[in-house]
Amino acid sequence: MSDYVHGYDPRESERLQDQAGTLVDLLHHDTTYPDGSAVLEAGCGVGAQTVTLASRSPGARFTSVDVSEESVAAARERVAAAGLHNVELRQADIFALPFAPASFDHVFVCFVLEHLARPAAALAVLAALLKPGGTVTVIEGDHGSAYFHPDSPAAHEAIRCQVELQARAGGDALIGRQVYPLMVAAGLDAVRVSPRMVYADASRPGLVDGFTRRTFTAMIEGVRAPALAAGLIDAPSFDAGVEALHRTTGADGTFCYTFFKGTGVRG
Amino acid sequence: MSDYVHGYDPRESERLQDQAGTLVDLLHHDTTYPDGSAVLEAGCGVGAQTVTLASRSPGARFTSVDVSEESVAAARERVAAAGLHNVELRQADIFALPFAPASFDHVFVCFVLEHLARPAAALAVLAALLKPGGTVTVIEGDHGSAYFHPDSPAAHEAIRCQVELQARAGGDALIGRQVYPLMVAAGLDAVRVSPRMVYADASRPGLVDGFTRRTFTAMIEGVRAPALAAGLIDAPSFDAGVEALHRTTGADGTFCYTFFKGTGVRG
Repeated sequence: MSDYVHGYDPRESERLQDQAGTLVDLLHHDTTYPDGSAVLEAGCGVGAQTVTLASRSPGARFTSVDVSEESVAAARERVAAAGLHNVELRQADIFALPFAPASFDHVFVCFVLEHLARPAAALAVLAALLKPGGTVTVIEGDHGSAYFHPDSPAAHEAIRCQVELQARAGGDALIGRQVYPLMVAAGLDAVRVSPRMVYADASRPGLVDGFTRRTFTAMIEGVRAPALAAGLIDAPSFDAGVEALHRTTGADGTFCYTFFKGTGVRG
Repeated sequence: MSDYVHGYDPRESERLQDQAGTLVDLLHHDTTYPDGSAVLEAGCGVGAQTVTLASRSPGARFTSVDVSEESVAAARERVAAAGLHNVELRQADIFALPFAPASFDHVFVCFVLEHLARPAAALAVLAALLKPGGTVTVIEGDHGSAYFHPDSPAAHEAIRCQVELQARAGGDALIGRQVYPLMVAAGLDAVRVSPRMVYADASRPGLVDGFTRRTFTAMIEGVRAPALAAGLIDAPSFDAGVEALHRTTGADGTFCYTFFKGTGVRG
């Protein structure tokens, strides 16, 4: 929030929550856990999904871990600020988790596999922590699912920089379309994947602002410095791409992006 | 026309795919016309949509036109074979229709604008045939919405041939994402567009076979000869692309494609 330029007007805050609510509902509306169940959230980051999860299943007990001590501290603050008491936060690496086999009823993994070099192996490790019959839920985006009007080769080039940087860091920004085979490869049963498409046009100003502008385009803008430093693109080309993405927020613009949500069962 | 309250809701789209599993339901479930209403289907082709439309609204009267006399004859046979008596078929050009202004209550246009050099002008012509308050419904695909696993540059090259051939013929195979601005440009009010995403993986074998293999890949295979004749690609490259599309129908493959359905009102 350090570079948040729109101030803290309560109405603005309310509007932002409404927008956030749109995407949150799209991704999480069908995830609730029974009272008393033990849920592992692997890779909680700063707790953005943790608060949603724990609020929606107040009777479940969440154990949320992240490899970054700093992120865990931020998540702890966020969870406390939300007044939630059903979340335990711990620093831990997914490949060295301090839990016994069959410790959990459910596992939740959101926007994590995209950063891992061995996503199917990570899922297998997580599945081993489940009791038989327990479920794994995975949510991932896919930057190759982004298309828009007006179309623009420059915009696709800027997006390509993000994909390439993530690949060089050992991740995969095109992972959403692979959620099904990854979950099957991890040995999960009854795998079902459902796409969650975000479509924004001028008749949906909340999505245009909240998703096209402030989520997707802002994310691409955020890789400008590393993309230039890595020599992936020159500055004018990158800036033209970002400008073209902003252009899709115009009155005649449209923007499409798809998240993929998968569930599977430990047999 | 029924007032479809779920709008573009991706969950609804997902539910439809899970429940019905057919493309017809995904695209047409929310289009029904009241008894006694007069509906113009512009560009009926060989009547594939005509039969669906007229069957679902048995009390409405359909006038289905196509520029091709041959297609109209085929549509006439298909309508007769379906035992439908609420369809009148006529040969006519969209830009020279033999109807007076305000002749119809509703207009339906499916997989037609993609072939026209002036799609917004065509929509404006059609809107002028509506009584005030009448609706226009548009359905179009978008070949830029196709992505898949395993990803393959060769497959994208083969798809690009189809897009380029359609562009050379004066059309636009990337029109789905433009349905909203086209309908607005045609002067329609209350325009709402909802994407209808098809997602196929091995857990949905009907879609893998019916859509990925027999609809999309078959369509791309169908442009092999013209693509080679136009010098857009060499034969081994095209064939590698088609092979890669077939590869997405494997046990670990996935395939995504999105149709766009728009409705607007004549003010």
